[in-house]
Amino acid sequence: MAEITKRSEDYSRWYQDVIQAAELADNSPVRGCMVIRPNGYAIWENIQRTLDDKFKELGHVNAYFPLLIPKSFLAREAEHVEGFAKECAIVTHHRLKQVTVDGKTTVIPDPDSKLEEEYIIRPTSETVIWDQYRKWIQSYRDLPILINQWANVMRWEMRTRMFLRTTEFLWQEGHTAHATAEEGRAETLQMLEVYRWFAEDILAMPVITGTKTANERFAGAVETFSIEAMMQDNKALQAATSHDLGQNFAKAFDVTYQDAEGKVEHVWATSWGMSTRIIGALIMTHSDDNGLVLPPRIAHTKAVIVPIWKNDEEMAAVCEAADKLAAELWPVVGKVHVDKRDKMRPGWKYAEWERKGVPVRLELGPRDLAAGQVMMAARHDRAKNPVPFADLATALPAELERIQQDLFAIACKRRDDATYIIDSWDDFVKLYEGEGGFAQCHWCGDGDCEEAVQEKTRVTIRNIPFVRDGSRGECVHCGKPSIGRVLFAQSY
Amino acid sequence: MAEITKRSEDYSRWYQDVIQAAELADNSPVRGCMVIRPNGYAIWENIQRTLDDKFKELGHVNAYFPLLIPKSFLAREAEHVEGFAKECAIVTHHRLKQVTVDGKTTVIPDPDSKLEEEYIIRPTSETVIWDQYRKWIQSYRDLPILINQWANVMRWEMRTRMFLRTTEFLWQEGHTAHATAEEGRAETLQMLEVYRWFAEDILAMPVITGTKTANERFAGAVETFSIEAMMQDNKALQAATSHDLGQNFAKAFDVTYQDAEGKVEHVWATSWGMSTRIIGALIMTHSDDNGLVLPPRIAHTKAVIVPIWKNDEEMAAVCEAADKLAAELWPVVGKVHVDKRDKMRPGWKYAEWERKGVPVRLELGPRDLAAGQVMMAARHDRAKNPVPFADLATALPAELERIQQDLFAIACKRRDDATYIIDSWDDFVKLYEGEGGFAQCHWCGDGDCEEAVQEKTRVTIRNIPFVRDGSRGECVHCGKPSIGRVLFAQSY
Repeated sequence: MAEITKRSEDYSRWYQDVIQAAELADNSPVRGCMVIRPNGYAIWENIQRTLDDKFKELGHVNAYFPLLIPKSFLAREAEHVEGFAKECAIVTHHRLKQVTVDGKTTVIPDPDSKLEEEYIIRPTSETVIWDQYRKWIQSYRDLPILINQWANVMRWEMRTRMFLRTTEFLWQEGHTAHATAEEGRAETLQMLEVYRWFAEDILAMPVITGTKTANERFAGAVETFSIEAMMQDNKALQAATSHDLGQNFAKAFDVTYQDAEGKVEHVWATSWGMSTRIIGALIMTHSDDNGLVLPPRIAHTKAVIVPIWKNDEEMAAVCEAADKLAAELWPVVGKVHVDKRDKMRPGWKYAEWERKGVPVRLELGPRDLAAGQVMMAARHDRAKNPVPFADLATALPAELERIQQDLFAIACKRRDDATYIIDSWDDFVKLYEGEGGFAQCHWCGDGDCEEAVQEKTRVTIRNIPFVRDGSRGECVHCGKPSIGRVLFAQSY
Repeated sequence: MAEITKRSEDYSRWYQDVIQAAELADNSPVRGCMVIRPNGYAIWENIQRTLDDKFKELGHVNAYFPLLIPKSFLAREAEHVEGFAKECAIVTHHRLKQVTVDGKTTVIPDPDSKLEEEYIIRPTSETVIWDQYRKWIQSYRDLPILINQWANVMRWEMRTRMFLRTTEFLWQEGHTAHATAEEGRAETLQMLEVYRWFAEDILAMPVITGTKTANERFAGAVETFSIEAMMQDNKALQAATSHDLGQNFAKAFDVTYQDAEGKVEHVWATSWGMSTRIIGALIMTHSDDNGLVLPPRIAHTKAVIVPIWKNDEEMAAVCEAADKLAAELWPVVGKVHVDKRDKMRPGWKYAEWERKGVPVRLELGPRDLAAGQVMMAARHDRAKNPVPFADLATALPAELERIQQDLFAIACKRRDDATYIIDSWDDFVKLYEGEGGFAQCHWCGDGDCEEAVQEKTRVTIRNIPFVRDGSRGECVHCGKPSIGRVLFAQSY
């Protein structure tokens, strides 16, 4: 069994170890790309199902657009090409050719298959989607269009880290079209609220909702909003973004509609996305030195029953009882796994399920069976109690709910404990030379000043929180007037 | 409203028209790639959910492997590179550069970002997956591995047709690893049976299960099995394949395991897939000159209620009743849509929902409301009956079931009517110069003879059916001895 490095010893190594111990992902031979293993993908499937249901409840439908984007499309929106040209995979040929070099057969791109116009693998799909929307939108009757896509995208990152930053990643990208600026803005904020709900209520991950500064806006957006979470090393992680694109893409791709009065106008757009990056955030929010910790609402397996025996007769009896319990609990809480592996000590099994983050363990030995009970143990705080079989159908969901709430409360407290109101540049520098955290500081609103802060300290403005101290003050860096505090942090 | 060309007039145009009229897909600016529109993607989502549930029921789990495959990987399995090198998208650079040519700014692949080893976009994932399995498999305890992946893949096709053959397509690809040849073969056949069940029971599409000839085997397989369906133009369509890969990929990627006795052996492999191509098959199996026809079990919307009114008062009453009915029917049959669009004639709405393939239409006018009934009309045979409100919760599911069975029966009859036992080459040629269809013929077993048939008539052996006339005879083409009949057809 691989050892897990302690958080306090080497945080980044700990993160890698948790991923490996829980078998969530693996390195691949493709630069910057990872393999998402079944345990990791099961989390993504739960994320997909929960978000997808919510999107549909709000009237969205799914569609699928091409992986490849004609090179020239990217150039249509000036800021967009600036933002993505430097990190995109480019397809230039469509055929391999076998050749013999120094007596060795190998394959090369067939020069005769060179493309007239190169394609890039989508880093995001605004361009190819808005090119299509031009065909689909003529009149106000065609609006709104509320489309979401589940897809893989690719951004050629130089420094990668599993889940958090990978060259290829999976995500959903919503792309909506509206008749008015107000409708577009309302959609943008509605989807940000969906992400807040999902992060806090499902992932038990507290987040700060707010507006990105102009420097940090999505390439092509009028306004970008984000949810920002805090990891256990006091760094911030942007967990999702929602963009008000105004008429930028409609103008770049010439998408207009005729309103009820016959007036022709450009369409208003939004886009919003959450990616497999959120799994990295989930790992870093709750896990501990024993491995992965998962909030029950996102855990694939809600509980594991570990039957304990010394001989074949006991084995038959406890396994039968365990199977019966698992079958009874399934309709109540979801998947309950029975670990019947032979020739493996219970302690070894406990440690394995702890590493894998199953929220609750139910131990069932011959004496428990005789007493008609199981020992119920919570993964995150090791609380352990005997529960009679008859009570399990109420006690287990209650325990899962307690764990869900507790994980959220712990994460909130950790975040709040590492959040500071800072008014002097010395204190600011000291904070980020030390433990780090969220700093609520006054800022002048100048992008150059923001950049100077980043150059000096690697600290950025995460967002301008919707809920903030709006009193006037002086910029923590340059001293110029400020109309309210913003959220600073070092970030992933 | 776009006209739909009659099948009898121009079959291939009819197919395109049905797709457009039902808004299933659209052309894209990317060569050979299509956009799957919400109505088409909803069918794919139902396919995914149904297959995925079945895969999991049989013990499979999902995972995700990289989109890109190092060029050299493809070359490891000799037949594999032969099969896929000629049609793959090749990534050669990872950055675009803005340049000014003749005073015009454009983007080109940055020469400084040329990759040392090129990547290809996966045409299928055996190579990248088996490279990973080498890391995951040491002992017999690690087996079997039963992994499935939902993904996009790319094969650079020269002649494309929506859904049936596109450069990029969506699919699932199962990749399993086993300790013995027998287990591998059993898995291959089990998954073929899953596909047969899915095609016949869910899509109402009769198929012939069988073994592919050596010429038609998957590149790298020991044996390929397929399900073959017949379209309305009497052409065959391969609806899914399941491959017994033997130890070919394990040997190419050096994947071995130690058995319980300590002996080291190469692992046995299977792979199996179904793609968005099946949506093309679905369209061509059931649709008619009025548009799309969908079997109820795969339809996203099971029924549409069309309220009919002449004034505001009537409108309020029928719409309220329609909403109530839809809400009551939802838990019984699934989604029931109420079409409340104003200023649109009911006849227009009927035609639109027919084009979109909703299996049942419920008409509800003021007189129906007064009588406490709806008119229930089936999409495929236009059977129309009044049904009292109180009976709808039993009558609608019964009607959906009748439609499902009827569509299957119609498709079976059409297939059987166009299936012939043919023993002379003249009759064979005559059949394929005319209407075409399935021909059950004797074949000598020689690949060269098979190729000669194809060159002369564009007819191929679809498969060697599991259930077939196994009597001896003479090859329909060369007259040499044959040990049983095989299935010939022209195909998509």
